[in-house]
Amino acid sequence: MSARVLSGKELAASIRTEAAERAAALAAAGTPPKLAVVVATADESSAWYVRSIARAAEKAGITCDIVDLGANAAPGLIRDRLAALSDDDTVHGIILQTPLPQGAKLEDLAGAIAFEKDVDGANPLSLGRLAAGLPAFAPATAEAVVAILDHHEVDLVGSHVAVVGRSTVVGKPAAHLLLDRNATVTVCHSRTRELAAVTSAADVVVAAVGRAGLITAEHVRAGAVVVDVGTNPTEDGGLVGDVDAVAVADQAGALTPVPGGVGPVTTALLLRHTVNAAVQAAGRG
Amino acid sequence: MSARVLSGKELAASIRTEAAERAAALAAAGTPPKLAVVVATADESSAWYVRSIARAAEKAGITCDIVDLGANAAPGLIRDRLAALSDDDTVHGIILQTPLPQGAKLEDLAGAIAFEKDVDGANPLSLGRLAAGLPAFAPATAEAVVAILDHHEVDLVGSHVAVVGRSTVVGKPAAHLLLDRNATVTVCHSRTRELAAVTSAADVVVAAVGRAGLITAEHVRAGAVVVDVGTNPTEDGGLVGDVDAVAVADQAGALTPVPGGVGPVTTALLLRHTVNAAVQAAGRG
Repeated sequence: MSARVLSGKELAASIRTEAAERAAALAAAGTPPKLAVVVATADESSAWYVRSIARAAEKAGITCDIVDLGANAAPGLIRDRLAALSDDDTVHGIILQTPLPQGAKLEDLAGAIAFEKDVDGANPLSLGRLAAGLPAFAPATAEAVVAILDHHEVDLVGSHVAVVGRSTVVGKPAAHLLLDRNATVTVCHSRTRELAAVTSAADVVVAAVGRAGLITAEHVRAGAVVVDVGTNPTEDGGLVGDVDAVAVADQAGALTPVPGGVGPVTTALLLRHTVNAAVQAAGRG
Repeated sequence: MSARVLSGKELAASIRTEAAERAAALAAAGTPPKLAVVVATADESSAWYVRSIARAAEKAGITCDIVDLGANAAPGLIRDRLAALSDDDTVHGIILQTPLPQGAKLEDLAGAIAFEKDVDGANPLSLGRLAAGLPAFAPATAEAVVAILDHHEVDLVGSHVAVVGRSTVVGKPAAHLLLDRNATVTVCHSRTRELAAVTSAADVVVAAVGRAGLITAEHVRAGAVVVDVGTNPTEDGGLVGDVDAVAVADQAGALTPVPGGVGPVTTALLLRHTVNAAVQAAGRG
């Protein structure tokens, strides 16, 4: 038996189409949506990702400014720039791209992103509001996990979900979003004892660690749903997830592919968030 | 076999003693610590709890102002008062007591408590910073769970902890604190299927729902540690936890009592937080 493939492409396309329609309406009303991506790294896979966001934004009619501060930017400079963009009425969404220079911490700097423009949910206030059930932008990757499960009609209510990875940008916010959907959620990590025993008790396994091949057949109960959030570059320039897809495909009931799973949905959600932020700004001003 | 009793009294006493010593030093330096408790309810068990905090604060040399806005206070009034206390340099800690009047939501109003004075971790920013690993005051009850386990030398690293209850004030922040201690954490709630199967797989069970007798012997693995956060008033004026202590005592390896477990540690931690806030304010000003 081979696992059903839970593609993210169709969902991403429909989110992009809707974002483009709403962006056109905003532009027609004289308030075209704009996204700013602050970059302070020379990392190549990061540059690839930023270009893919910029392309997707422009296709959707969203202006995308890439603000490159250089790989040696001081934390204070990054913070000042985020604050200036937060004060700029023509900017609706702000993303601080990782990795950051030595000594700079995303959670810390992202506090300078205005809450209403924090379209990738990086400001700790956004995470806290999310956890408290108040309106906030979730980190797009975490939201993409739930969106792709919804799109493929995986029922979360009462299900047991194991989230592998406890990062502030994926694991923890995904856990809150899944709890909010009435799943029972177990957060596992590098210090979890007998990881396979824990994850193979779950109906859904979300792999968000960033290590190729971490999740193998022994980690997955027969018929379980597996969401692969990992995007690990391979030596030949490709991309693989955290899941050993070949081994797991025989065991799982369904599996998101890499590429073509969570990734495109994440990018599409960033566009939706930016349009939402622009609509809210237009409503305020 | 009967479970070891994990009392909170000794720990609470030592935290109170330390807080009193530091409060005396602050008073001698001309900056006596002050806690403000904002009340907008006629609820009797709430009034009892507020009096117990006020008594404990005064014994420790911390001024405690009870700001009673009445059970019909409008959310806007509560918010304004929290903002005014946040601006008052003589106040170092602010607690917004629950329950609140119809239409008022703790998570929402607590955003008006200055982050540096949010000694019970009710502002969503505090929760987000906690989740992001940044300095913040944790909700005292959630912190008391970890403190009582530490005091009794229960090793959390790599252990599997089931938190029953997903409230913003206890379950969720406790999950983050436990994750931070390298426990594998499962958050269960009213929609969890087969609760007993989930909790009896855990090394430590934290019961934080607010329903007397919810956790019985079938929910607990032989030898597991049980932390009872519940404080449910009984008809005869007493207090019981969420755990059926008689049934669980034969099964668990250790159990926190109610009263005398998490409760006194919670109150003591509020005092510690207030003194910490006063020390930080003195350092700034």
